[in-house]
Amino acid sequence: MTVAAERALASTLALIQPVDAEAGEEAQRVLDAKTKPRGSLGELETLVCHVASIRRTASVGRLRPALVVAAGDHGVAVEDVSAYPQQVTRQMLENFAAGGAAVNVLSREAGARLVVVDAGVVAPVEHESVRSLRLGAGTANLAAEPAMTRSQALSGLAIGIELAEELAGDGFGLLALGDMGIANTTAAAALAAALLPAEPEAVCGRGTGIDDAALGRKVAAVRRALARHGPWSDDGVGALADLGGFEIAVLAGACLGASAARIPILLDGFVTGAAALVAARLSPASAEHMIAAHRSPEPGHALVLAELGLRPLLDLGLRLGEGSGAALALPLVQSALALLAEMSTFEAAGVTDAGV
Amino acid sequence: MTVAAERALASTLALIQPVDAEAGEEAQRVLDAKTKPRGSLGELETLVCHVASIRRTASVGRLRPALVVAAGDHGVAVEDVSAYPQQVTRQMLENFAAGGAAVNVLSREAGARLVVVDAGVVAPVEHESVRSLRLGAGTANLAAEPAMTRSQALSGLAIGIELAEELAGDGFGLLALGDMGIANTTAAAALAAALLPAEPEAVCGRGTGIDDAALGRKVAAVRRALARHGPWSDDGVGALADLGGFEIAVLAGACLGASAARIPILLDGFVTGAAALVAARLSPASAEHMIAAHRSPEPGHALVLAELGLRPLLDLGLRLGEGSGAALALPLVQSALALLAEMSTFEAAGVTDAGV
Repeated sequence: MTVAAERALASTLALIQPVDAEAGEEAQRVLDAKTKPRGSLGELETLVCHVASIRRTASVGRLRPALVVAAGDHGVAVEDVSAYPQQVTRQMLENFAAGGAAVNVLSREAGARLVVVDAGVVAPVEHESVRSLRLGAGTANLAAEPAMTRSQALSGLAIGIELAEELAGDGFGLLALGDMGIANTTAAAALAAALLPAEPEAVCGRGTGIDDAALGRKVAAVRRALARHGPWSDDGVGALADLGGFEIAVLAGACLGASAARIPILLDGFVTGAAALVAARLSPASAEHMIAAHRSPEPGHALVLAELGLRPLLDLGLRLGEGSGAALALPLVQSALALLAEMSTFEAAGVTDAGV
Repeated sequence: MTVAAERALASTLALIQPVDAEAGEEAQRVLDAKTKPRGSLGELETLVCHVASIRRTASVGRLRPALVVAAGDHGVAVEDVSAYPQQVTRQMLENFAAGGAAVNVLSREAGARLVVVDAGVVAPVEHESVRSLRLGAGTANLAAEPAMTRSQALSGLAIGIELAEELAGDGFGLLALGDMGIANTTAAAALAAALLPAEPEAVCGRGTGIDDAALGRKVAAVRRALARHGPWSDDGVGALADLGGFEIAVLAGACLGASAARIPILLDGFVTGAAALVAARLSPASAEHMIAAHRSPEPGHALVLAELGLRPLLDLGLRLGEGSGAALALPLVQSALALLAEMSTFEAAGVTDAGV
């Protein structure tokens, strides 16, 4: 498995190219001929050009969206770093399967295909609408030992790559990513601290709503992990294995697979951001394929977005995860692309172009 | 006409009541039972509760959205305060009718009924998809004389009230507002300067993209208008007549009519904000029915939103007007309401409630 996974990773990394700035500039010229003052749609115009550069064409058209929510359990939950017991990961996976969670509602509203992945919760969820792509029964406690083996990390990346390739093959042209996993903001904080790098205090937040004592335990857990392992510098796979999570591995792989397939990646919050950071360490050009749906109140998220060079579309204090922010931002992306495709030009509409 | 319009205004003002805070609190209790950490959907939860308080029920359900774009011409255009010639108002109205403008694309994307109103462009547009509710052939130059008569201002308010009542009667439960009118940010700036009050420099911006010289003329025009007329203090109708625009009068009336019908109002940018400010001066409780779709780069817009007590949903540098920002924010409102209606509770989904 490890050899096959390493090969899948290497061949995918070889496929990822920088985005096409010229296609972005051409999209701007197309927008500039539309019946509106130049630049008057602000960051939506930047978004259009970014997507065009990712798709390598100014004729982007409509993109069929999929939203992958990957779930995994985290051994670091034993450090009492979450407000919720570990069993909630599995319960929420069942809630996704039953259609009752926020992301079910929001992905329906956004017209996105929801793909729920069990990347390794403690007890498997067997349901027709849950993809079982398990790397194990939850990770080990990253504060005390490596969260997973290097082989598991590579397998997770390969699984994510394969999933993105499959979705690309099925005609999806836009990949939104979300996560579920009790204690996974601790893993995300550890990855951010290792890879940015940053002090644990700067990247540990209150997640779903922990108190000061739990926040102290979270910072301590990240600090112990950083002291035990590393340094990683540019070793994305090593950091992922030592500090990550199964869902984070799959999401990082999905970033790489989507980048190789020239598919824009719409990132949700801090945990998908940490996965994206792992992907960017393995392939800096991968980051050029990413769009930040929103900025969460987690203090590490803004740092990760800055490192990835991303400016969030929304800033609404969202801290739910599970892809909810990505689903909420999806209509902005779709509307921006509809403007590119469907608006009239000054010439066609007979509107005077003042040239501003 | 004036007497009838005054009666319509008075009876509408009498109908507008403060929103129901208890319905908002009940909506928060409903949200708090849903499968997510409390408050984790951030400002979307605030939005849900606000809409519930406007609708006076925690069972808001789905709201059918309409987007009214009102257009009018402005005599102050002779002061050379816009980058575009006046004829562009009419050309854009024709573009709306033909379906090629940004707001056509965005209202389709958002599933909103688009209602285009000719409130008084210089040359009438006759087209089946343009509602002709004209107050005149463009306003007078507000820098030199009153923009319109008090009778026209009252008629504009009555027309807007009637339009909102009609849409409410047709089953629309959410009213988005937009504007079109060359030089209308000058009228909006004059209204903001008069009603906030504020210095002309603090509320005049570059609109569709004017240079420093034009910005200087804009500030001077507003300053002349303020010196010639007023003071208005709380005279909303007087300020509207002296400084406003025909589309602004209709939009202010629509705010009042929607408030009376307990319909949430989704405001676009600076010009609809100025109309909302007029409505709020006539009925402070009307402001409680408003939602700010976005914040534009026009410097006066942030001041108007602060005065109305509104926090914008989007901040994307949008400065197109024509309802584009309102249409872009509409899916956020719809998604928020879908969450209230459709998400499972902790109890129904069998998810452990940690109480945070």
